[in-house]
Amino acid sequence: MGLPPRLLCCLFLALSLAAAARAATRHHEWEISYQFTHSDCVRKLAVTINGHTPGPTIRATQGDTVVVRVKNSLLTENVAIHWHGIRQIGTPWADGTEGVTQCPILPGDVFTYTFVVDRPGTYMYHAHYGMQRSAGLNGLIVVEAARGGHDAEPFRYDGEHAVLLNDWWHKSTYEQAAGLAAVPIGWVGEPQTLLINGRGRFVNCSSMAPGACNATHPECATQVFAVVPGKTYRFRIASVTSLSALNFEIEGHQMTVVEADGHYVKPFVVKNLNIYSGETYSVLIKADQNPNRNYWLASNVVSRKPGTATGTAILSYYGGRSSPRRAPPTTPPTGPAWNDTDYRFRQSVATVAHPAHVEPPPPRADRTILLLNTQNKIDGRIKWALNNVSFTLPHTPYLVAMKSGLLGAFDQRPPPETYAHQGYDIYAVQKNPSAVTSDGLYRLEFGSVVDVVLQNANMLDANKSETHPWHLHGHDFWVLGYGIGRFDPAVHPATYNLKDPILKNTVAVHPYGWTALRFKADNPGVWAFHCHIEAHFFMGMGVVFEEGVERVAELPKEIMGCGKAKGGGH
Amino acid sequence: MGLPPRLLCCLFLALSLAAAARAATRHHEWEISYQFTHSDCVRKLAVTINGHTPGPTIRATQGDTVVVRVKNSLLTENVAIHWHGIRQIGTPWADGTEGVTQCPILPGDVFTYTFVVDRPGTYMYHAHYGMQRSAGLNGLIVVEAARGGHDAEPFRYDGEHAVLLNDWWHKSTYEQAAGLAAVPIGWVGEPQTLLINGRGRFVNCSSMAPGACNATHPECATQVFAVVPGKTYRFRIASVTSLSALNFEIEGHQMTVVEADGHYVKPFVVKNLNIYSGETYSVLIKADQNPNRNYWLASNVVSRKPGTATGTAILSYYGGRSSPRRAPPTTPPTGPAWNDTDYRFRQSVATVAHPAHVEPPPPRADRTILLLNTQNKIDGRIKWALNNVSFTLPHTPYLVAMKSGLLGAFDQRPPPETYAHQGYDIYAVQKNPSAVTSDGLYRLEFGSVVDVVLQNANMLDANKSETHPWHLHGHDFWVLGYGIGRFDPAVHPATYNLKDPILKNTVAVHPYGWTALRFKADNPGVWAFHCHIEAHFFMGMGVVFEEGVERVAELPKEIMGCGKAKGGGH
Repeated sequence: MGLPPRLLCCLFLALSLAAAARAATRHHEWEISYQFTHSDCVRKLAVTINGHTPGPTIRATQGDTVVVRVKNSLLTENVAIHWHGIRQIGTPWADGTEGVTQCPILPGDVFTYTFVVDRPGTYMYHAHYGMQRSAGLNGLIVVEAARGGHDAEPFRYDGEHAVLLNDWWHKSTYEQAAGLAAVPIGWVGEPQTLLINGRGRFVNCSSMAPGACNATHPECATQVFAVVPGKTYRFRIASVTSLSALNFEIEGHQMTVVEADGHYVKPFVVKNLNIYSGETYSVLIKADQNPNRNYWLASNVVSRKPGTATGTAILSYYGGRSSPRRAPPTTPPTGPAWNDTDYRFRQSVATVAHPAHVEPPPPRADRTILLLNTQNKIDGRIKWALNNVSFTLPHTPYLVAMKSGLLGAFDQRPPPETYAHQGYDIYAVQKNPSAVTSDGLYRLEFGSVVDVVLQNANMLDANKSETHPWHLHGHDFWVLGYGIGRFDPAVHPATYNLKDPILKNTVAVHPYGWTALRFKADNPGVWAFHCHIEAHFFMGMGVVFEEGVERVAELPKEIMGCGKAKGGGH
Repeated sequence: MGLPPRLLCCLFLALSLAAAARAATRHHEWEISYQFTHSDCVRKLAVTINGHTPGPTIRATQGDTVVVRVKNSLLTENVAIHWHGIRQIGTPWADGTEGVTQCPILPGDVFTYTFVVDRPGTYMYHAHYGMQRSAGLNGLIVVEAARGGHDAEPFRYDGEHAVLLNDWWHKSTYEQAAGLAAVPIGWVGEPQTLLINGRGRFVNCSSMAPGACNATHPECATQVFAVVPGKTYRFRIASVTSLSALNFEIEGHQMTVVEADGHYVKPFVVKNLNIYSGETYSVLIKADQNPNRNYWLASNVVSRKPGTATGTAILSYYGGRSSPRRAPPTTPPTGPAWNDTDYRFRQSVATVAHPAHVEPPPPRADRTILLLNTQNKIDGRIKWALNNVSFTLPHTPYLVAMKSGLLGAFDQRPPPETYAHQGYDIYAVQKNPSAVTSDGLYRLEFGSVVDVVLQNANMLDANKSETHPWHLHGHDFWVLGYGIGRFDPAVHPATYNLKDPILKNTVAVHPYGWTALRFKADNPGVWAFHCHIEAHFFMGMGVVFEEGVERVAELPKEIMGCGKAKGGGH
């Protein structure tokens, strides 16, 4: 029975070579610059790629090599771009995380990101430096299943559309960051507009100063998604929001969720989809409604009390009697109640692996890190912290520091593994909100299995707890469980879903809730793990993992040149 | 007669040692960050030093060493600081000119500027990177005459005050720069407010949105200069404006001009003083007016049609019956007619060296560079050019490139030495406004005497020519002459003032005029020479000189690390 090992090996090699022969290299030339844009009809300076925000969609096929040559044409500002959801196996220096995997790209410099997209799915890219993501530097990555591999996809569709969701502020990210760092804090506030594919309509356009808002600017013309009656469409949906948790709905069309963060989902049907910053989903819809009218695509804020109008786009049927751009005859869907945590919790729990695509998790963890997410105060400034440690980025990237043996580049003391969970009241305002800042990291044994339990809690204000979408670089993780209340290490692990947990790279921690995840520390490199809310990461809500850094090949010199890796130091 | 050489040498050594023993080192610790400021009562994000704009005044004594440890705490933005008027003899790497003498200072980095202030006088510092100077990073340098050296000053005074003049915009410098680079151009426009010592009052404060302007904010409280009746005061006046040529007046008090750019002037009395961006003056005033009322200090735009209210501060007499902050009973002086070029021209010509402090210029030049200043169009963008070459900064600093032999870091072809001046009509719109961009530089023979004649001309619009204040790094130059009309190399050199020309580092080229200057290329290094209007330099109005770079000592590694000097290149 079966082939002898030597033949098996040859067969594998032959298949690999065949795959390699098919794999293409996708070249992109990007120039990053400031441009005046009109995403929501309001004139605003944005960080753009080749003049546009969002940037171009990167389309590739599983196994392809993507090469993006980034020229920084900003005047005084550096840049770095993260390929969100791409694990960068063998290329940890291409993860684009300033301070973690690379020095920033200086004005005038060209930096080439080269990486393999090893799995099909829906991903995204965005700046990972300061708050530049919010300034407009973001876009989609769509990786098709390998040629012939489409047959392996557990669903069928006739066409596809891509939807990139965002929230948008009129204030510059400089002002936002300066406010966040100020005493008292100047909070970013609710976004002015919700964007779909970089387009929205600011509701107070007409009351703005002359020239500030142009309601007929082509850049803010509503996006139209055209469908052929009777056909099934895959909508790839990604959220790159800075702050908002969103609920996405296509009026009159039920959605079947089939993919999450590049993994096939056991299909489930929803009227609308909750999507957190950093997440991607694919849903299928059937174009089976009255083709003679248009339908709204709607994006609504959930989890925070909304202060922003519904973001909209239009679904229009080919051959129907409605002109594609005509507003539907209805009012746009307003989504579920913003504070219906239970509604969102149920969707989280419903998202499990497709039966034919289950990758079983290791049965147990070698190490469990329990992270209490709290709001804290340091020197009068409001911060976020994990186990009372608020994260700061070092100015020498960890990857460079560790490979070059630059001692003193970051705090060598590891952050705490847990918090005093027994007796901790997650529903109360923390009695002593003081915390420390640190750029220490967690060093993981290479190949070990790591559980992380994210424990949410009350904020500095009474009766307030927010949703935090946590994103892990360099890995997917199994989502083992969710709960509301305090996680008990003696009780809850027994409730984990070890049968068909979904693999994801971003997951929500619900208000007053916990989320348990597991991953294998088998990707040599240094990897950020953080709340994907731009302001929260800026305020310290993140940690960093290192694993197998000694296995990382020689670093490209291009990622160096800053902090202690600068020639001569200081 | 005279001492034998060996004894002379010993005497010189002894004197040097004595001077060195007296010389102090002045340490400064600066942190650069964005802060919300209220310079003109309007809330605006500014680049600050230790939280303030303008930054602290550097006070030192001739011969002191100034050490400024600059920590860049901006989030994503680099920085570089120029010490305007300090020649950096022996320390060309400390000139702070990004792209010329150093790589920018990255966020998180500390860069230490160390330089000797070898001459007494009034100087300034400001960012020299992108348009950061306009964002608030600027301040004064006051160098006292060496201990005992005050006796050598050709004037006496009882007290002194410092006045830093500026213009101020509410738009961010990012927006300004993006506008300047756009097609069609988004010109920066006239400033919203004129500042005196970082304080002004925006005239439309009350009509702004709630919270946007606070007329009672302490940061915009009018500056009061107190004087004792009967005493004589030295006012040190510097202009760090981004755009505006200014006229400065102290109501009811004549001013005797005694210093310009660190050199003693043959005293002349004025009712008010024209001062261009990058210039400094000292004037003496006698506090001999009615002490029972206050007087305006007034700053008015000249040379451009003003769109900005008079900038004001208050002169108040100690012991008088007026409270120091009370507005004077008069309306502030409005200065001369903005377009009275002749009035300003006369002040330029009147500014010559003090008879007891004449440093005679070399009688003739080894080389003359004739630079036609024109407005041009390149790829639809409006630029400024010299002899139809619009300057761009390289991303590898010249000093680093030339010392490290990095070929290809900049255009090796020298820019043109002259233009077709015969028959050129400087009063007409240029027939063919196209130009080229280049980062080539002028290589000067070490120790040679160089004349530069700056020739102004008509802009792209008919009947329009502006004043350009040109600033030379690393040197003072003799101002040999000014003229209106076309400079004729066969005629005008005979009219040069070779008897008592003033030495300056910044000089105005008047509308449709020319200015001739001479300097000795005896300071090893690479030095920018450019219009000090921030937008004009951004648009290409500058050149670079190199001299004796082979004599420059080994460069500090701290200035390297960018462009082709980055490890490994790209």
